[in-house]
Parts: sequence; C-alpha cells; structure tokens
Amino acid sequence: MSDHNFDQAVALSGDADNRTNTIHPAYQNMVGPYGGITAATLLNSVLRHPEVEGTPVALTVNFLGPIAGENINIRPRLVRKNRSNQHWSVEAFEGDDTVLTATLVTASRRDTWEDTELEFPQCANFDEIDPVPEDFLITWAKNYDFRFALGGLLGTGTKGETPSQTLNWVSDKPARKLDFLSLCSICDTFFPRLMVRHSEFAPIGTVSFTVHFHVGQEELDSLDNGWVLGNARASKFHGSYFDQTAEVWSSNKTLLATTSQIVYYKY
Amino acid sequence: MSDHNFDQAVALSGDADNRTNTIHPAYQNMVGPYGGITAATLLNSVLRHPEVEGTPVALTVNFLGPIAGENINIRPRLVRKNRSNQHWSVEAFEGDDTVLTATLVTASRRDTWEDTELEFPQCANFDEIDPVPEDFLITWAKNYDFRFALGGLLGTGTKGETPSQTLNWVSDKPARKLDFLSLCSICDTFFPRLMVRHSEFAPIGTVSFTVHFHVGQEELDSLDNGWVLGNARASKFHGSYFDQTAEVWSSNKTLLATTSQIVYYKY
Repeated sequence: MSDHNFDQAVALSGDADNRTNTIHPAYQNMVGPYGGITAATLLNSVLRHPEVEGTPVALTVNFLGPIAGENINIRPRLVRKNRSNQHWSVEAFEGDDTVLTATLVTASRRDTWEDTELEFPQCANFDEIDPVPEDFLITWAKNYDFRFALGGLLGTGTKGETPSQTLNWVSDKPARKLDFLSLCSICDTFFPRLMVRHSEFAPIGTVSFTVHFHVGQEELDSLDNGWVLGNARASKFHGSYFDQTAEVWSSNKTLLATTSQIVYYKY
Repeated sequence: MSDHNFDQAVALSGDADNRTNTIHPAYQNMVGPYGGITAATLLNSVLRHPEVEGTPVALTVNFLGPIAGENINIRPRLVRKNRSNQHWSVEAFEGDDTVLTATLVTASRRDTWEDTELEFPQCANFDEIDPVPEDFLITWAKNYDFRFALGGLLGTGTKGETPSQTLNWVSDKPARKLDFLSLCSICDTFFPRLMVRHSEFAPIGTVSFTVHFHVGQEELDSLDNGWVLGNARASKFHGSYFDQTAEVWSSNKTLLATTSQIVYYKY
C-alpha cells in the first residue's frame, strides 16, 4: 500500500461485503474523522467490491452521529445491476450503532453529445498564490494544500458575489494522483460557510453530503496534476441547517464534480 | 382523502413499515410514473410514519429502473434517532425488484442566526405571464401550471446566462396548498435540460435526485399561495449523464428548496 496518509486512511480489511476501516489520526476533525475521508472510505468499499462495474456518477453519504472509536465496519450492497449502471447502498457501523448510510450510482459512460455549461472561474493560477500556512489548519486540513484566489479559509480577504463565496485551489499534500476517492474527499474540503461568514469557529456537523461526478476514468487519468479549483458558496442558513455547494474543476478546466451538502449548526 | 390528483397519487395503504402505493395514471411520464410524484410518495411514507419527528431537511431518491405495473411496496425504516434529527432509509419494490432507494434526514429546526445568500431572481410575476397551453404537456405535466419568465418548456424563447437556464413559475393545477410533499414533487418539474438545449424529446431517465429543504412547517403554512419560482440550469453533459440544479422560491421571496439531479441520456 502507498504510504500516503490518504491511502492509509481509506484502507479496508475484511471481506468484500463486510469491511473494516481503521480511523486514521491524520484526518481527525473537531469531533471524529473529517467527513470527506469517511465518504471516500465508503466509496472505496464499493470501488474495491468484486461486483462493481463502471465509475461513480452520484454519491450521497449521510452522517448519522459522531464516530468516537478506532474502527468502523462497512457493508456495501449491490441493490440492482442494470445494463449500463449499478445502484449500491452502503451502511457503516460502530459497534451496534449505524453511523453512516450512503447510496451510490456507478455507470459505464459512453460517447455522447457533450457540453459544459458552467464557465471556468477567472482567477489566479495555483502557482501564483501562497499556500495557507499549515499552522492555521485543523488536523485533517494539514493533508491539503489550500491556495485562495477569492476569500479565505475563515472568510478573510476579498468577498465574492455572495458573502460566503470562496474560490480556492486545493491538492493533496504531499501530491497524489487524483482518483475518484481523493476527488470525493476534496469535495468536502470547502470550509463550513457559517464559519466563513462569521470568521470564527462554531459548532457544525454535516448531515448529508452529495457528489455528482462529471468525468470517467479516462479524463481523470489524463490530468497533468492533482490540483483542483473549487468555487464554493451557501444558499441559505435557516433554523439550525444551512447548505453549501461547490463546483470542482481540474487545472486544465475540466468540470470534475459538483457537490452539495446540508450542515447542522448552532449560532 | 382530498380528491386532488396529487393527494390520490401519493396515497398509501398498509402498515407503517410496509406501504402500498397505487400508480396514478394522471402522473404518467414517458416510461412509468413521473419521478417527482414517486419521490413525494416515498417522502410520504416517512412523514406518515408514527415514529417521525421534525420536517424534511435532505432527501435523496435513486431511480433503479422503470416502474411498469400498478403498485409499488414501500418500506420506510428509521435508522437512527438523534436528539434533534432522524435518519431514514426507504426502499420500494415492484414484485421482487427493488425500484427505488432513498435516504431522508428529518429535523426539528430551532431559532438561529439566519441569512439567505442567493438573490430572488428579477422577473415577471406569475400573474403577468401566460400559462403553457395544456395541449403541449405530457400527461404528468398537465397537473402543473407552468409560466415561463425566461426560456421555455423545450428551450424556446430568450436564453439565460447559461444555455439551458430557465426561470419559470409553477403551481399545482388545480391549486393546492403547498406542503413538503408537493414541494418535493415540484423540485422535479424542471424539464430535462438536454431537451431544453436541443428543443426536442430525447431518451432520458433520472438516476439520482436530491432535495435540500430550507424551510420548516411554519414558513410553509404562512405562504399566501402555492406558486413557486424555479431557476433551473445544467452544469455539464458528459458520457451519458448530465446534471441539473434548481433553486425554488415562494412568491413572497422565501428560498424553499434547492435541488440537484443526475440524469442518464442518449444523444
């Protein structure tokens, strides 16, 4: 196995239908592990399953409660196999408690008429921007190199078209070839918009996280580097829940994924 | 029971843990029932469950295959109950085939700091726009009154900032008080962006549909009417799958829901 923290963190042991994952200390968040690494670990349980076909198209992971211990058990289940896609359900347990549920669609993509409607954001390139100093970062975030073109980690800097909008480059640190697992995890790296708005830490917890993938294996394999550009914002904060969405682009201007999540908050 | 088509279409019989729904002919789509009514029916199985607490926050429904027959069986399951929210999983069957999977988070909302970052779109009001003639509409869509402020049902009219963007008012027809079920269904009324782009019908099928709800019961109850404004667009069409997203506003400018879906297509 690669000795990259990321590969160690998403590693699985056990049978294909009943996996065990050891929580990696390098991706610790305020309470329990960083959600992006947990989502990627569930995705890994499907992508390493002997029955899987195709690549991820739509993933939703629900966070049922904090993961307090050292291991989780993950049970991926192929619910239905169609000619060109598969529907999976995944549940993860800590002891007797269900801590995560997920659904995933994988598909074999075919050549079709194509178009990207979103425009690649105009901004400075990653090699023109200073990284966020590692000292500023919570444990899990030290595994990423963040470079802000608009806004900042906790809302410092110039504001975008919506108050919580940020535009930042991010890559695994140390560099790692981008695959579906790391892309999934990166989709959760955009700091909670509540904190961006108020420039301070506050109690939050993602309850549901969705990633829509817009590339197949071939496009991922052809990328020159692992840098992606994320354009993130919130729509609304209301009654203990807010959403945030992001578009994630490669440095060669390919839209890789779009993501949305609903986050519990107190403020 | 109300004799509104919508209430008949989402109606359930049987036990709380094992419901039966009869497919209503009024919401027929190209193949099987309209996905919005199916999603609302699954949501109904949770909202009518005796153990449910709170209102919907995040719903993802996966469409595993066409529904060909007259009935589906729906099994809602409370996976975890926390102090202020619940996590549900739902599966639906036609005979032995699983046809739908879903996850739903419900929550009791509390008073918090609030803000809506998105801006209500500037456009003509519903009472200033002619409805799309019913003759133009596929069966399910005849249950809705569509009024386009930007773009058209199949892409006719003025184009927005992205080629497939449309801005349209929509309400149940005949009028019906907006509740979480009808809001859920309305989130799927925005015509497939592939067809909007090409101004013609094409084979498509939603594989995964997510709704994030941004209001509680109180805000829904206070609405003057059932009209909502939807701002819909696609991000990318690639390799047999495209996404589309929409923001859904009440006529008093409250953001009610944001929604995204991934759609299979041939073109």
